Amino acid sequence: MSKLLIVGSIAFDAIETPFGKTDKILGGAAPFIGLAASTFNIPSAIVSVVGEDFPEEYLKMLQDRSIDTEAVEVVKGGKTFFWSGKYHNDLNSRDTLDTQLNVLADFNPIVPDHYKDAEIVMLGNLNPLVQLSVLEQMTVKPKLAILDTMNFWMEDMFIEDLRKVIAKVDVITINDEEARQLSGEYSLVKAARAIEKMGPNYVIIKKGEHGALLFHNEQIFFAPALPLEEVFDPTGAGDTFAGGFSGYLTKTNDISFENMKKAIIHASNLASFSVEKFGTERMQELEREEIKKRLQEFKELTQFEIELT
Amino acid sequence: MSKLLIVGSIAFDAIETPFGKTDKILGGAAPFIGLAASTFNIPSAIVSVVGEDFPEEYLKMLQDRSIDTEAVEVVKGGKTFFWSGKYHNDLNSRDTLDTQLNVLADFNPIVPDHYKDAEIVMLGNLNPLVQLSVLEQMTVKPKLAILDTMNFWMEDMFIEDLRKVIAKVDVITINDEEARQLSGEYSLVKAARAIEKMGPNYVIIKKGEHGALLFHNEQIFFAPALPLEEVFDPTGAGDTFAGGFSGYLTKTNDISFENMKKAIIHASNLASFSVEKFGTERMQELEREEIKKRLQEFKELTQFEIELT
Repeated sequence: MSKLLIVGSIAFDAIETPFGKTDKILGGAAPFIGLAASTFNIPSAIVSVVGEDFPEEYLKMLQDRSIDTEAVEVVKGGKTFFWSGKYHNDLNSRDTLDTQLNVLADFNPIVPDHYKDAEIVMLGNLNPLVQLSVLEQMTVKPKLAILDTMNFWMEDMFIEDLRKVIAKVDVITINDEEARQLSGEYSLVKAARAIEKMGPNYVIIKKGEHGALLFHNEQIFFAPALPLEEVFDPTGAGDTFAGGFSGYLTKTNDISFENMKKAIIHASNLASFSVEKFGTERMQELEREEIKKRLQEFKELTQFEIELT
Repeated sequence: MSKLLIVGSIAFDAIETPFGKTDKILGGAAPFIGLAASTFNIPSAIVSVVGEDFPEEYLKMLQDRSIDTEAVEVVKGGKTFFWSGKYHNDLNSRDTLDTQLNVLADFNPIVPDHYKDAEIVMLGNLNPLVQLSVLEQMTVKPKLAILDTMNFWMEDMFIEDLRKVIAKVDVITINDEEARQLSGEYSLVKAARAIEKMGPNYVIIKKGEHGALLFHNEQIFFAPALPLEEVFDPTGAGDTFAGGFSGYLTKTNDISFENMKKAIIHASNLASFSVEKFGTERMQELEREEIKKRLQEFKELTQFEIELT
């Protein structure tokens, strides 16, 4: 069976939304990616770093889902990366209240030997130099390397590093505003084309509640977001999407455009759960039957029969 | 064959977009609705009003597409409704530069006798009292009455009239911000439910470049907008959508939810053409083969096979 290698932050998040606020809870790209990918029952491993303050039970929770955490470095005397944010009333925007990089500042990722031949590599949002380092440690070229990133790394200080890693991956996932910023194009069709020229053969533009677009040459596929009565906490939705996408491709071991369509439907489906509770809570309790039921809702939402006469 | 009755403004528009500007060109809800509906080769009639300054050739152009313009009143000595607007760079918002109601201010709609039994009635955006008057003149209850409206009629001065007409229609089409304003709900799922309680059994929420949602009881269907390289002029996109929707239902004479799904795909398809040139220009030159080709693109954009195992 194929294997999925995940690199990404592990964090404590303190989140405030119009519906409530949390103390320090489990956050960061890697747990969301791992939990979403684990719904496909695949072997996966996380490369990340935490401080001595990180509860063993969180790692145990990931291991219980067949996620290998051997390469999650625990820095003695170090503190785990901390992020705090407050969402605005519409939940479409947020203010960062506090960021303490802590052990993440000097993170030197080490890919475990038995994952240096992983077929699928999911580079979660992180310093592009860390993402590059992971790619360089692979002894077998991955079948598919997927990059998630954000506007923070498009600032002058990091953009050259980001361009280097973009040039080396097969798929990039990025939100609409970031795609515009990176490409300098307002039209998402043009933006995707410009980003394809930077390296990736596949560009996924995430539009939050408006769904996601998959671009490949002249082909475009669109997955809507499921219209929800209430979004509770959007934190980690993009990471969950990335985990669903990479997890499905690992499970099926098929990286054709047709299969990527299915992958982004699965990805959107999982992301629709993630936002229903704070942090990773909803993903931890998610049942197979719920996933299946909601996939059916996705079908009903988008599928039609039309005669081309 | 079923017949479509259309009521809506006819206007001169002067439009400025980042791509250029126009002198007075043909605009208003009715021509866009009529042109879109006419692609289905159905009998239709427009109830509207123009001034003596309105070129005969425009009416001729509509008549050439089997649109009955007998009920377009020409007011002697009157001037046609005029609207002027300037779009911002992102084309998602615009400023109204000038509005001269002219003959529209005292418009008294008269439904022609041979359309008082029309199966489908499309009430284009207009004063709700005019929309109500049209409904009241029908001697046979229409199979489906569809209402399009906008935020202007949700102001204190008009909201009671608007509520009256909303209570009498089967379908309402409205954009996302207007749905929120009308319902007081931020979530579009909740907004649609609240609006259904006001009367219509079907609520269509238009999200512009982000597509359109059709709500009916617990069922939801989503039609994306086709990702376009460039939007040239968004004026009339919503009216074109309304024309495509009502035209397809008239053609097929089937108002089931399943058929409405197809209708909003056709509607989105036609709207994607409308925005490619100024005003009604693109709709006037539209060929059957182009429509068919782009419907195929819609299928490729949204259709997937997924196993629910």
